[in-house]
Amino acid sequence: MNVHVIGIGLIGGSLVLDIKALHPEATIYGIDANPKHVQEAIALGVIDKESNYEDLATADFVIVSVPVDVAMTVLPEVLHHIGDKTIVFEVGSTKTPICEVVAHHPKRRNFIATHPIAGTEFSGPSAAIKGLYQGKTNIICEVEKTAFKLQEKALELFKNIGMRIRYMDPKSHDKHIAYVSHLSHISSFMLGKTVMNKEKDEQDIFDMAGSGFESTVRLAKSSPAMWTPIFKQNKKHVVETLEEYIANLTQFKDWLEADDYQAIFNEMESTNKIKEILNGITTIKK
Amino acid sequence: MNVHVIGIGLIGGSLVLDIKALHPEATIYGIDANPKHVQEAIALGVIDKESNYEDLATADFVIVSVPVDVAMTVLPEVLHHIGDKTIVFEVGSTKTPICEVVAHHPKRRNFIATHPIAGTEFSGPSAAIKGLYQGKTNIICEVEKTAFKLQEKALELFKNIGMRIRYMDPKSHDKHIAYVSHLSHISSFMLGKTVMNKEKDEQDIFDMAGSGFESTVRLAKSSPAMWTPIFKQNKKHVVETLEEYIANLTQFKDWLEADDYQAIFNEMESTNKIKEILNGITTIKK
Repeated sequence: MNVHVIGIGLIGGSLVLDIKALHPEATIYGIDANPKHVQEAIALGVIDKESNYEDLATADFVIVSVPVDVAMTVLPEVLHHIGDKTIVFEVGSTKTPICEVVAHHPKRRNFIATHPIAGTEFSGPSAAIKGLYQGKTNIICEVEKTAFKLQEKALELFKNIGMRIRYMDPKSHDKHIAYVSHLSHISSFMLGKTVMNKEKDEQDIFDMAGSGFESTVRLAKSSPAMWTPIFKQNKKHVVETLEEYIANLTQFKDWLEADDYQAIFNEMESTNKIKEILNGITTIKK
Repeated sequence: MNVHVIGIGLIGGSLVLDIKALHPEATIYGIDANPKHVQEAIALGVIDKESNYEDLATADFVIVSVPVDVAMTVLPEVLHHIGDKTIVFEVGSTKTPICEVVAHHPKRRNFIATHPIAGTEFSGPSAAIKGLYQGKTNIICEVEKTAFKLQEKALELFKNIGMRIRYMDPKSHDKHIAYVSHLSHISSFMLGKTVMNKEKDEQDIFDMAGSGFESTVRLAKSSPAMWTPIFKQNKKHVVETLEEYIANLTQFKDWLEADDYQAIFNEMESTNKIKEILNGITTIKK
């Protein structure tokens, strides 16, 4: 089995580590715009060998795991080079633009659009970890546009890696993921910024930070190169979530300024219901 | 050794669990407005016996760990009942109002104002855990107003529990903690609210949530009874942090609407410096 990963970081690297564990006989090839990443990935045992686009003709699986703007040119190019039996999946956090860019590609049926909902705040080959996808959700878009035999091949692999599958159209995916993922990242980045700006004037306030602060700003460690194009591609929905979030924060501030503590209490109490929802996430996905 | 904890929840309960581990001969007494909490705490081994205010005359240590509004009446009452050698500490997340309310109390020198920066999103006696304070920071305010021998007694206990001490005046404490703790809680509650409101119209979007979302909304599970009075007491600083946070989010949204992705990239890249700061927290405090 020949597997090629294009963009050897957290997402693609972790995928090939799981594939290699399931299929020790597989040869894992890697392509990366950064030559240091290729060397690092070989040294870490994430990939076996470097490859290039000409080698893709004999690939069984090709994973495109590059920033979502780069994927817009890489994916059509990859489809141009693959063989008839190759299945290609792209794993980015936005799905409408990538589905549109290959909609009329002659090899569209060799492509399956996926979004494995998994990750950490780290990036690069050293961020790749085994078992990242165990119990996580993989969202698949426009499954009907992928050749049936190749769908089967991809789904069997996802299942063996431990993922649950959910089907969704690309537009619904992009709208919903803005709420449960993209907004969290912005909220975290801006929280980090607000506190860091304060730190400039008031030394050592981080010395007072505890695990609660750490948890809410964890995502502010995420890669700008990965996240800027996500926000760009999903601009419309991200702006919508930001408007709602800012309106809710402003409402909270208004209540505080008006000394309406009953409203604040009620608001927090009703949001406490998120406990059960998070328990659901923890039970199902961990 | 006689130790009394008034308000047997996460903070006070965890403290007495550590004290009992250090001093197995100590008797741990508890007082709680909720009779079920007293029974639960005894059943869980968090306290040995129920007590009442009349028993405080023979106490070595009294821990006041009730919501910060309740502490405003409980603490003066406690000081009224204690003996000359008793040391009382209050552990709430705001320090100016509590220091003011006992400023002229005849037993002011038996009181030490503390804020152990530790916790989880859970509450009640079952939330008490051993070792919660290991490696955490304990902020002590107006230490000079506590009798020297009682300071020594309290500080030795905090040190033995594994805490590092930091001294601060109450006003600085309340200003800085608004940034590194209170704002995180509001950011998390409002993020939870924004996504839950959306869920009403669009079913099952939580099914798409991953560990990033979970991390940023974790604090939205926190107790409204504990947090409403904190926001009330620290209103001025909390409003200030919210204004800055909302301004930063609005700036981000404006850049997105203006397609200024370079500004967004730069913003995230500069906020990435929080990595080193968080590593500092993790190294020192865990």
